[in-house]
Amino acid sequence: MIRFESDYTEGAHPQILTKLVSTNMEQTIGYGEDPYCEHARELIKEACGNNELAVHFLVGGTQTNTTVISAVLRPYQGVLSAVTGHINCHETGAIEATGHKVLPLASEDGKITAQQVRDYYDEHWSDSSHEHVVQPGMVYISHPTENGTTYQKEELVELYNTCKELELPLFIDGARLGYALASEGNDLSLEDIAANSDVFYIGGTKVGALFGEAIVISNESIKKDFRYNIKLRGGMLAKGRLLGLQFETLFTDNLYQEISEHAVTQAMRIRDAFAKKGYQFLYDSRTNQQFPILPVSLLDFLGEKYSYSFWTKVDDTHNAVRFCTSWATKEENVDALLADIEEFHK
Amino acid sequence: MIRFESDYTEGAHPQILTKLVSTNMEQTIGYGEDPYCEHARELIKEACGNNELAVHFLVGGTQTNTTVISAVLRPYQGVLSAVTGHINCHETGAIEATGHKVLPLASEDGKITAQQVRDYYDEHWSDSSHEHVVQPGMVYISHPTENGTTYQKEELVELYNTCKELELPLFIDGARLGYALASEGNDLSLEDIAANSDVFYIGGTKVGALFGEAIVISNESIKKDFRYNIKLRGGMLAKGRLLGLQFETLFTDNLYQEISEHAVTQAMRIRDAFAKKGYQFLYDSRTNQQFPILPVSLLDFLGEKYSYSFWTKVDDTHNAVRFCTSWATKEENVDALLADIEEFHK
Amino acid sequence: MIRFESDYTEGAHPQILTKLVSTNMEQTIGYGEDPYCEHARELIKEACGNNELAVHFLVGGTQTNTTVISAVLRPYQGVLSAVTGHINCHETGAIEATGHKVLPLASEDGKITAQQVRDYYDEHWSDSSHEHVVQPGMVYISHPTENGTTYQKEELVELYNTCKELELPLFIDGARLGYALASEGNDLSLEDIAANSDVFYIGGTKVGALFGEAIVISNESIKKDFRYNIKLRGGMLAKGRLLGLQFETLFTDNLYQEISEHAVTQAMRIRDAFAKKGYQFLYDSRTNQQFPILPVSLLDFLGEKYSYSFWTKVDDTHNAVRFCTSWATKEENVDALLADIEEFHK
Amino acid sequence: MIRFESDYTEGAHPQILTKLVSTNMEQTIGYGEDPYCEHARELIKEACGNNELAVHFLVGGTQTNTTVISAVLRPYQGVLSAVTGHINCHETGAIEATGHKVLPLASEDGKITAQQVRDYYDEHWSDSSHEHVVQPGMVYISHPTENGTTYQKEELVELYNTCKELELPLFIDGARLGYALASEGNDLSLEDIAANSDVFYIGGTKVGALFGEAIVISNESIKKDFRYNIKLRGGMLAKGRLLGLQFETLFTDNLYQEISEHAVTQAMRIRDAFAKKGYQFLYDSRTNQQFPILPVSLLDFLGEKYSYSFWTKVDDTHNAVRFCTSWATKEENVDALLADIEEFHK
Repeated sequence: MIRFESDYTEGAHPQILTKLVSTNMEQTIGYGEDPYCEHARELIKEACGNNELAVHFLVGGTQTNTTVISAVLRPYQGVLSAVTGHINCHETGAIEATGHKVLPLASEDGKITAQQVRDYYDEHWSDSSHEHVVQPGMVYISHPTENGTTYQKEELVELYNTCKELELPLFIDGARLGYALASEGNDLSLEDIAANSDVFYIGGTKVGALFGEAIVISNESIKKDFRYNIKLRGGMLAKGRLLGLQFETLFTDNLYQEISEHAVTQAMRIRDAFAKKGYQFLYDSRTNQQFPILPVSLLDFLGEKYSYSFWTKVDDTHNAVRFCTSWATKEENVDALLADIEEFHK
Repeated sequence: MIRFESDYTEGAHPQILTKLVSTNMEQTIGYGEDPYCEHARELIKEACGNNELAVHFLVGGTQTNTTVISAVLRPYQGVLSAVTGHINCHETGAIEATGHKVLPLASEDGKITAQQVRDYYDEHWSDSSHEHVVQPGMVYISHPTENGTTYQKEELVELYNTCKELELPLFIDGARLGYALASEGNDLSLEDIAANSDVFYIGGTKVGALFGEAIVISNESIKKDFRYNIKLRGGMLAKGRLLGLQFETLFTDNLYQEISEHAVTQAMRIRDAFAKKGYQFLYDSRTNQQFPILPVSLLDFLGEKYSYSFWTKVDDTHNAVRFCTSWATKEENVDALLADIEEFHK
Repeated sequence: MIRFESDYTEGAHPQILTKLVSTNMEQTIGYGEDPYCEHARELIKEACGNNELAVHFLVGGTQTNTTVISAVLRPYQGVLSAVTGHINCHETGAIEATGHKVLPLASEDGKITAQQVRDYYDEHWSDSSHEHVVQPGMVYISHPTENGTTYQKEELVELYNTCKELELPLFIDGARLGYALASEGNDLSLEDIAANSDVFYIGGTKVGALFGEAIVISNESIKKDFRYNIKLRGGMLAKGRLLGLQFETLFTDNLYQEISEHAVTQAMRIRDAFAKKGYQFLYDSRTNQQFPILPVSLLDFLGEKYSYSFWTKVDDTHNAVRFCTSWATKEENVDALLADIEEFHK
Repeated sequence: MIRFESDYTEGAHPQILTKLVSTNMEQTIGYGEDPYCEHARELIKEACGNNELAVHFLVGGTQTNTTVISAVLRPYQGVLSAVTGHINCHETGAIEATGHKVLPLASEDGKITAQQVRDYYDEHWSDSSHEHVVQPGMVYISHPTENGTTYQKEELVELYNTCKELELPLFIDGARLGYALASEGNDLSLEDIAANSDVFYIGGTKVGALFGEAIVISNESIKKDFRYNIKLRGGMLAKGRLLGLQFETLFTDNLYQEISEHAVTQAMRIRDAFAKKGYQFLYDSRTNQQFPILPVSLLDFLGEKYSYSFWTKVDDTHNAVRFCTSWATKEENVDALLADIEEFHK
């Protein structure tokens, strides 16, 4: 079975393992205060073009979202998110478990707009009973979204300007950030991301690391006492250096960007192969996740050799599914898939 | 200004005040274990036709909803509710503050169906990633709903049977329960309510009391240690007898039913007056809340003498608004309103 | 049975009932924004000598403590309290239910000192692992304490100055505040209380009201959005005017002070009667709660006619118990008790 | 600098790294449902002598404690723990953040007794106001404790029998469990631990793994839906196989026991060296943590080459400190330390 079902089916980029092995018996202090974490922080701040940023490393995405969001909000505030946002759908209520409501905004493709945020804000504050309603306290977006779609620079800048005007901190979930930065038509740099958010995270788990997410904070009030929040939410890794070592590797010699580009290249090959046969896609994704709408007969045929994720039933004979590539995707596996798509259509 | 904006604009039914005054200097023990609470519990169990019920008294609705829902759910569970449900819209996230997500079901008129519950349940458990999604753990309905609509017996029985089959306790928010029991076309008795739910509450605040809600529990597992939950959520009134005295009064000589009927009668007069002029209603309410869609010119005219609640803008010249009656509504005030409606249309 | 077991065995001061009755059918808006609440707020601000204070009304003490403390703390902070503090002992973990640890300080008599606060703070911040430990975020005291003891002005001023220096907001639980203000040797005025705290509350439930506590906030950052916190914690009373009416009455013509003095006078009579017979007291209380250490034989004798609270076993033949007076205590009942104490010792 | 300050200063046992490297590019499904996790679960159940156990893998200790405790308790319940317990002292209030109070029991050396649990239980339930007090809902112990002390079989059996009788599930924090199992005088096997608890965890982070803790559940009601709790608390590792691979390695060929013995052997060498010079110890630890009370002059001398943790000041010239060994401690480093202790005393 060749797996395209998700982007976390393998271990880590070999350079990371090499680094773990070569440093294994070194002794360091714990909890993220070791030299590897320090160095990784410097590299990330440099890549973001801002030396005033605070950088923290956590193990996984749900933990990261929970830690950031609960650190930002006051008890009576909620977080605005696309209704399809990961925090609203796939974290077993982890945000609510910290006491906060996720305030869903309608979304077709996973993205939300500055106008939606402004409308929600205006409607809240114009309600004479607004004290009986959860107050919007911050905005969460994912980039790329759970549907593989991405924000253009113009969209992000407008969203962030709106957030600043309304005093709603903007948090970008970058679980797959590398794949957005490497996507076709992308016009956002890491500097842009850092300059147009209050806090965001750079995903490692799905982009080359064994595990790990790097939180990057520009907003001063969020920086304060942040390590307490990490410990409180169970995210303070004893051997913090494992995170430092991985991000040090990813942010040396452009590795993070390179492996992301590889994943996107392979995803575009899959996309083009399906498109050439006339299939539609559920979302217009230029990143590592592709959502073709395929006939059940083709899915059955491919399912014998390849795993993919079922997404939704479209009609009696068609389903939308997800094919993922990653830093680890082997070109030859994509070759095989493309050949089988051809084979089916002979 | 004659107020029709809500059903809590006055104090309490005079018999309740009389009772408070006549017992004022009696000494009783606190926290709901006094003879008045005991007697009120007996009267309510009798009215519900079930001596095995547990009855507890709390001060207000949000507190009651929070206490019940957090007592029922496991940490990873959420509560199914109409998207318009009070717990989803107007409690400032009090449910989420106890760690639980409200799982919204689509609703046009405030009601939900057995089929919706079953579909949600089936979809949840058929998802291979269901452990990443909040598990539905109970069902919340309001009767009458926030929109004044009500469940017919057949609907409630079907909903409750579904809940039992799926092991989802059913909780009925009866903040305005009296007005449902007294509504046109109602075929549900208090016994029916008690027999077709795991827990519900009988609203006092909006139906004759100064304040107070009576929680009625039939499900054994919810009964256990319930007083701890009340104290934990800040709902254990020191002078609990104030609640006992009020419910004792309301459940003596059919007072609760009688004053509810008065409110509904007055509401129907208002409804008929608007209907006679050809106005539509946002919801088909037969209870004490009426939601006519009225021209702004009429609203301005009435607004000089009467208060009502703005509900929603319907078009450039029409708004939907809410007129409430209650146990306290004076017939002469409704007379005046009806006369002014006529006056406007001359 | 004549009850001395607690200070909430009766209803309310007759003037309050009169006010409730006379205003009963008036129509007002809800949720604490009516003219009675407005007027009560003005009276309290005047009594506190500070027009910039924010005043809010809640129903009960646990709710009040929970609302205030969760409004002040950041998620990783806890509240310093005497180990005997009500929030640490008798609220079923309501503070922890909002996510915060109560940080207990040793106390013999219910009071804590400025030095204890400073030592705790210094120890926390000098710990190299302080991020692994709950950060002290505010200080809670009760005045009078649960043991009837009180702070002298010098003690409170020193405590508050320390709190300000360390940026730990000071919250005073005044569930029985009237009885402290009326106590023998008291040198603190209501102005002093307001000037030497960030937030405190004036207890009504135990001092003349049917129910109700008035939160008084001087700290600007705590004032912000406070009504959201009230709603969130279930403390927003629909008919808020019931609270306004009661505090308006209590703060008119010095009633709060007068009825408090009555309670203390009666308590001192009881104290003196036991002292005259040579009995010791568990705490040196000059307020409405008295904790004599009495032989079991005397307790049995008195127990036939009077209720009191068991506090703790002192030795095989002696228990410490609590006798409470209140605004409602009848002089003739104290006369009877004193006569029976004499009778026993004949 | 040779580090004895903690037992997480190095990476992982080399066999673990070898396994990670050799399996790196294999594709597996995520979230702990891969074959490596399956196999590790089998090995652990076998080692525990009970095939009915449920085994789950999490990343770190605080997360594990939080997930287990919040899964067991009802909202109004707290967890009994030694006052020195990790959950009470060093998790930044993570337990309280899930809504539950830690109920501290006095302890000199980190252990608690069956009698203490029974006394607490009896006192709670005999209090007529028990509903105003957090209900004890489970018992937490660490084995070895934070002070290096351990339970004897007789003590654990008595504690567990008491817990069963009182219906208080017993949870054993085994962050350093290997070092207890390998300690001098130990009479508890892994089977005994599993048979005398409702749930416990086998620590990996401090005993050979890069990271990871294996939760072992025998109590049926705790097993139910446990994976939801893991996800909810942010502990569901995407590449779950990383945990499976590590525990598979540790539980193959007795590795976990062997490396634990190594650590204890080295700790005993350090202990003996200090004891031979006449120094006392703060706790009687036979595990990998040693707490000698040493003169400041010796500490300064050793501090030039060796790191240790400051524990507490004993008097003006003596401090208690902590020296840790682990699976990774090099014999030659202990040789050097011992030589320097000798050197100082020449």
